[in-house]
Amino acid sequence: MSDIARREFLKATLAVGAATGLDIQAAEQNGRTERVRPDGNHSVMDLVTPALEMVRIGLIGVGERGVGFVHHFCNIEGACITAVCDTHQAVLDRAREIISRHGKTSPALYTGDEYAYRRLLDREDIDIVVIATPWQWHAIMAAETMESGKHAFVEVPAVTTVNEAWWLVDTSERTQMNCMMLENVCYGRDEMMVLNMVRQGVFGELLHGEAAYIHELRWQMKEIEHKTGSWRTFWHTKRNGNLYPTHGLGPIAQYMGINRGDSFDYMNSMSSPAAGRAAYAQREFSPEHKRNQLDYINGDMNTSLIKTKKGRTIMVQYDTTTPRPYSRHNLIQGVNGVFAGFPNRIALEKGSDESYHQWTFDMNKWQARYDHPLWMQMGRQAGEQGGHGGMDYLMCWRIVHCLRNSEPLDQNVYDAAAWSVISPISAESVADRGNSKPIPDFTRGEWRYTEPLAIVGEVQTV
Amino acid sequence: MSDIARREFLKATLAVGAATGLDIQAAEQNGRTERVRPDGNHSVMDLVTPALEMVRIGLIGVGERGVGFVHHFCNIEGACITAVCDTHQAVLDRAREIISRHGKTSPALYTGDEYAYRRLLDREDIDIVVIATPWQWHAIMAAETMESGKHAFVEVPAVTTVNEAWWLVDTSERTQMNCMMLENVCYGRDEMMVLNMVRQGVFGELLHGEAAYIHELRWQMKEIEHKTGSWRTFWHTKRNGNLYPTHGLGPIAQYMGINRGDSFDYMNSMSSPAAGRAAYAQREFSPEHKRNQLDYINGDMNTSLIKTKKGRTIMVQYDTTTPRPYSRHNLIQGVNGVFAGFPNRIALEKGSDESYHQWTFDMNKWQARYDHPLWMQMGRQAGEQGGHGGMDYLMCWRIVHCLRNSEPLDQNVYDAAAWSVISPISAESVADRGNSKPIPDFTRGEWRYTEPLAIVGEVQTV
Repeated sequence: MSDIARREFLKATLAVGAATGLDIQAAEQNGRTERVRPDGNHSVMDLVTPALEMVRIGLIGVGERGVGFVHHFCNIEGACITAVCDTHQAVLDRAREIISRHGKTSPALYTGDEYAYRRLLDREDIDIVVIATPWQWHAIMAAETMESGKHAFVEVPAVTTVNEAWWLVDTSERTQMNCMMLENVCYGRDEMMVLNMVRQGVFGELLHGEAAYIHELRWQMKEIEHKTGSWRTFWHTKRNGNLYPTHGLGPIAQYMGINRGDSFDYMNSMSSPAAGRAAYAQREFSPEHKRNQLDYINGDMNTSLIKTKKGRTIMVQYDTTTPRPYSRHNLIQGVNGVFAGFPNRIALEKGSDESYHQWTFDMNKWQARYDHPLWMQMGRQAGEQGGHGGMDYLMCWRIVHCLRNSEPLDQNVYDAAAWSVISPISAESVADRGNSKPIPDFTRGEWRYTEPLAIVGEVQTV
Repeated sequence: MSDIARREFLKATLAVGAATGLDIQAAEQNGRTERVRPDGNHSVMDLVTPALEMVRIGLIGVGERGVGFVHHFCNIEGACITAVCDTHQAVLDRAREIISRHGKTSPALYTGDEYAYRRLLDREDIDIVVIATPWQWHAIMAAETMESGKHAFVEVPAVTTVNEAWWLVDTSERTQMNCMMLENVCYGRDEMMVLNMVRQGVFGELLHGEAAYIHELRWQMKEIEHKTGSWRTFWHTKRNGNLYPTHGLGPIAQYMGINRGDSFDYMNSMSSPAAGRAAYAQREFSPEHKRNQLDYINGDMNTSLIKTKKGRTIMVQYDTTTPRPYSRHNLIQGVNGVFAGFPNRIALEKGSDESYHQWTFDMNKWQARYDHPLWMQMGRQAGEQGGHGGMDYLMCWRIVHCLRNSEPLDQNVYDAAAWSVISPISAESVADRGNSKPIPDFTRGEWRYTEPLAIVGEVQTV
């Protein structure tokens, strides 16, 4: 990395490091083994908190991703946005205008330095905080949210190191506040249908899954001052591994009941050469442009393998550089057959009229039979609200619903931790010739006694 | 494994072990590091041998797989089958009838005990021996073929252990006889087109490949006395890893120039639970049937990652158990885009009219531009001869062509060794929590100075 690039990255991360005492590089080397739960802390598995009549929301980060939450929470009954924080005045103004357009009370606005969010956390009229900031801010903001007596809802990945993951787990268990990662893909219509099929035994005993985030995003390198590329680009100069595992992995983990009957055990990882980003910079920017001063070390395609305690395997890929079509793979395979996504297709030995020797691409029959109850109930509404085909709206709706009805959330801090640490652990394996590394059991053994996610068929009337 | 099963497996393997001094289990633990070439031995890279006017062929094994070679060599000018060996009289008679039907001289037939092939090797009127026997016989038969002064052509996988691989390499280098593995998929029309595209730079700098043998073959368990399942079933009780890597991997290795500009470096591997074969046995056989006495230990889906010396990655899968559609993946990805198979599809940034954000499934344009010269010349003839869509015939034709014209073969003993040892090394990694294991460099560094396979555009008139 050039000196300029290093300064720019440090600008964004050093403050965080100073505040938390964490160093990203050092943290990757530590925190591997299981940890004893500190005295006085208690499990937050299937945590139930007192029912809220109105869910009062503070938003930290209302940029490219966060603005969606402004829209969605304005459209959900029983939710109101009390306060909004961002370091960028333009998006803050935009958020206020959207809220005003909905005829809602104008929120308190916080901006200025990067720690303005702490003044938002000081407020008494907030129940939950939704965090949509650059990755390096997720853990500290979520931890401080819980410390302030509020539930944390944090964008993916929830953490960037294993130590950060334990920090969130311990904080959630000590404060007994929720810490849910906003893995919206778990609310996708296809994913929820497959979850329904898995729970109903369509694929038989599960064996193997495949997940990916294959999404060509080199163009984000042109975002220089604001937006995602202004900070995410630097991660490609900082870590060689899977930078963004949870969109593909979250649904597979839910199918398999990770942290709920099964648990990640160990993983390995390999990266291809890193060639595409440098080539893109050379093509799209002048030689002296700062995008041409960076050392892009992250392999264009990273492939990892995960082994679960029950012996199942998961293949996870990450590639935001190669020109190729989008895919999250979304493959789940059992003794009776397989479902795969992008495009959706299925092959089954029992329970299908078609031969399993050919993929069936027509999903109508399957959707008619296995569409998820939540989608049957909420689908039209979700689709109208947009946001990745409705999954974003549905996630927000479900959060409000659970909090208002004293129901456990669909994702907890153990999921946030387990799904997110695939990134730092993949980097550790890549750096060590693809040797396998243990994945901590953040539930400390509780996965053995926890029922699989039971949102299937248990949706209540709005 | 039950006692009955163990006896049955030993019956097939012990004789080999005794003859070669090799023990399959022990061999998996050894032979990892590079080995010094014994004094007096010389490289066989791009080996050229004196031109043969007529290629005189001895066949060992003319069962399910070998019978195809009887057909093909009867239909190739400049080839004649001199002798045939098999332990099973019925297939031996069938081979003789086929040859007779073609109006060819009746071959000498060898049968009786399992070492009858040694009498075939004693003959003087044989130039090459084609070996299509159970896996555990491949290495010893190929080695003894070369010792007898004949070229060895051996079915996949050429070897089942790393020690066997070095044995073949050393024997080929000492005797200066060819030892080519019969990886027919390298002669598939799609694979040769992609090889052509790779050589012409369509995908840019290569980054990553994916290979597989996903082929539901549980039904072979019903082959009890003869045919593939009668011996292959036992491998599922003996090894947990990728039992059969080369069909998918061979073409990817050729695209990447493995042993010719690049080299396998290390690999890791994980297996899913083994559930499908036991379930199938329970469903299809009586409780006391010997298929229900076996302990099927091989994971239904095995996934391995390979890293090359140039840093590229290859994902390789093996699954002959799960009910799902056939695939060899056949994916090759470069800085400029990606080709994938099953079904064939392509996405490119430069050189295509279509957006790389969507797969293009129509291959007509690409085939018109990049169909391999050998297929353009031989395609109709190959297609008419059949055998996996013509690839088998083309492979046989190409072998005869090279031997008659003093040209190097398209695959050599280093390829046979490197592609085959993925099986034992995958098993070693699976047994060691997916830790990575080195893959020997059978070329002993010569890959650095060897040109990529140059069959593109260099086909001569028949």
